[in-house]
Amino acid sequence: MNKPLRLKEIEKDTWSYEGTPVDCVIAALLGGIPSLCITKENREKDLSKAPDLVLSGINAGANLGTDIIYSGTAGAARQGSFFGIPSVALSLVDNAEDSSIYHWEIIIEYITENLGKFVSYWKEDTFININFPNNGKKPVNIVNAFPSKRHYNDIVVPFTAPGGRVYCHIDAGKVSGAPEEGSDWSEVLNGNAALSVILSQPCRG
Amino acid sequence: MNKPLRLKEIEKDTWSYEGTPVDCVIAALLGGIPSLCITKENREKDLSKAPDLVLSGINAGANLGTDIIYSGTAGAARQGSFFGIPSVALSLVDNAEDSSIYHWEIIIEYITENLGKFVSYWKEDTFININFPNNGKKPVNIVNAFPSKRHYNDIVVPFTAPGGRVYCHIDAGKVSGAPEEGSDWSEVLNGNAALSVILSQPCRG
Amino acid sequence: MNKPLRLKEIEKDTWSYEGTPVDCVIAALLGGIPSLCITKENREKDLSKAPDLVLSGINAGANLGTDIIYSGTAGAARQGSFFGIPSVALSLVDNAEDSSIYHWEIIIEYITENLGKFVSYWKEDTFININFPNNGKKPVNIVNAFPSKRHYNDIVVPFTAPGGRVYCHIDAGKVSGAPEEGSDWSEVLNGNAALSVILSQPCRG
Amino acid sequence: MNKPLRLKEIEKDTWSYEGTPVDCVIAALLGGIPSLCITKENREKDLSKAPDLVLSGINAGANLGTDIIYSGTAGAARQGSFFGIPSVALSLVDNAEDSSIYHWEIIIEYITENLGKFVSYWKEDTFININFPNNGKKPVNIVNAFPSKRHYNDIVVPFTAPGGRVYCHIDAGKVSGAPEEGSDWSEVLNGNAALSVILSQPCRG
Repeated sequence: MNKPLRLKEIEKDTWSYEGTPVDCVIAALLGGIPSLCITKENREKDLSKAPDLVLSGINAGANLGTDIIYSGTAGAARQGSFFGIPSVALSLVDNAEDSSIYHWEIIIEYITENLGKFVSYWKEDTFININFPNNGKKPVNIVNAFPSKRHYNDIVVPFTAPGGRVYCHIDAGKVSGAPEEGSDWSEVLNGNAALSVILSQPCRG
Repeated sequence: MNKPLRLKEIEKDTWSYEGTPVDCVIAALLGGIPSLCITKENREKDLSKAPDLVLSGINAGANLGTDIIYSGTAGAARQGSFFGIPSVALSLVDNAEDSSIYHWEIIIEYITENLGKFVSYWKEDTFININFPNNGKKPVNIVNAFPSKRHYNDIVVPFTAPGGRVYCHIDAGKVSGAPEEGSDWSEVLNGNAALSVILSQPCRG
Repeated sequence: MNKPLRLKEIEKDTWSYEGTPVDCVIAALLGGIPSLCITKENREKDLSKAPDLVLSGINAGANLGTDIIYSGTAGAARQGSFFGIPSVALSLVDNAEDSSIYHWEIIIEYITENLGKFVSYWKEDTFININFPNNGKKPVNIVNAFPSKRHYNDIVVPFTAPGGRVYCHIDAGKVSGAPEEGSDWSEVLNGNAALSVILSQPCRG
Repeated sequence: MNKPLRLKEIEKDTWSYEGTPVDCVIAALLGGIPSLCITKENREKDLSKAPDLVLSGINAGANLGTDIIYSGTAGAARQGSFFGIPSVALSLVDNAEDSSIYHWEIIIEYITENLGKFVSYWKEDTFININFPNNGKKPVNIVNAFPSKRHYNDIVVPFTAPGGRVYCHIDAGKVSGAPEEGSDWSEVLNGNAALSVILSQPCRG
């Protein structure tokens, strides 16, 4: 966010912003939207106008385990947690048979019914990451799962264009390996809403 | 990396790539540079041609604790670790008096002398993040430190341009709080090379 | 067009391309869409598969006289003419009372009825530039007009962002001056379809 | 120029701007650089602070005849002429044997000696376009030439990337045809500084 980015109130209390999801959280809470601003001019924090919740998503596609590292949806929730605000990232996994199908209505209804439960898992210095099954049914249960390790098996294909310039293209692979029992990946395959509590800060190894 | 990115061998065994540092690691190891490729056409991993080390940086400016979340330099090391390769991120902190001064030569010499030690801290599923002092002296010691929590105190300043469009600008703040004893931040202020072993995967809270 | 641009057949014989309008004409005719390709592998021209017409637009807003210099819509027609193909640029001027109103249906119907007449004005080394009134009525006549001189009266407003970076914003002015009789600007104000035959090549002064 | 662009005084009276050459002329003269501003707050023109000359270039590579349509260097001179200021575009053609060679010093010296002559060709509603030979010698003469017609013989090569996305690459061709006697192309091949007076406004065909 080194250059000016456009912010627009497209209808009352609904804003669009041209940055990444993380940029959106920063712009909204640090001064772009005055009614949500959590910082005073002297830069002291003042959470009196803070939103109750940073809700990011619903992403079209899974953000399971390792995916969180690359996910803008999860990043926005992490950013919300850095501001001390309960923050939840929501993702609807791909349909097993047809990747163009997303059963949005079912999941939106389910989220509306269970949002309080989701937020109850939140604690300081974490954010909540939830993946929903996309099988046309409501999730069976909310399960507190650990984040899975995922291997992507992408390859990079260089193409030499006329004139000699080389351009690289990603050829995305399938995520390999079997999901471990108790992982978010396993739980969402079981038809559950797979919820993970993720530490926001870097973790010492 | 959803679009073609240009790869160029600018001199023998020295390549430039137009993506982020993470994109560079992916392009180099997954097929863009055939002599380093770690994946076979059937997408099985084959580390026989893998480099011994992914070394990212030296970044101009600190990547301490929370900074790691936003750092491209650290991201590249994390990506290397996902491929099972020892990976180290290097950053030279800002000079306390004059932010335009970077004592590169001293630090490059120090890194050359100590690279083996740095790598000896590496283990699977981690990457090594190191910050060097920028005080014109060699670091006193290499200290294994924990990543510090950092608060940025940025504010966002909206500007209404002629015609009514609103653009947001970041007004970067100073990192606040006192560095905790034993943290990377504290150790680099003490004149040490502050080394942290960081878990690559998301961590359960 | 120095980098790879994405071409997509969004439905049969309907293509999208991520470049400018000029890039679109180049991609379509020089090899991107094989069924329209006007060049052989040895780079000799072969117009046997060329389209009968390059039709660019309908642009939302005027492209009168001087506007042609800046107009992507007109540029695409110019590019078509460089390939020896009859080329027409179409623009619907802004509504005098409400700039959000465009009477598309009336104009599309009018264009459909008169396309043959428009093309009859075309000759080698020119393209046809047409502006339509946007007053809710069909144009009274097609008038062959000369391109008007337009003065924009824009100003540039610099803004010093936090941290000291300066960004310039355009504050668009109103086009000033009275339209000359017989110019495209005058004719479209009279309710006519203002057609101009424009030389494609740079003109000696 | 629909978004904010960064303007920076890199040293006294030397500015950089992140837009196109046309954007640079607009930013400099319409308010970005107050000491050059040609417009008052009420948007009336006031040329008292206008520069004596808009000099664009020296471009690395020819801008002969048809090239002018695509040239940012020529565009900036055209823009200067729209503001009523004498405007000259300068281009150094490619070396016939080695396209990496540009004899800058010779041409800069020649321009310095002859700038007054170049400007003497300028008149209202035109700009001056000059191409210099790149043969290691000073131009023989300044010749007022007409703009040549140029055919590019580019082809477009589509590449289907893994995953099925199609990207188009330009394969630049050689300019074909023989230069007409008296054209800028012919004169620069004869070792002359080929000067053309070009009408700034679109020309009726």
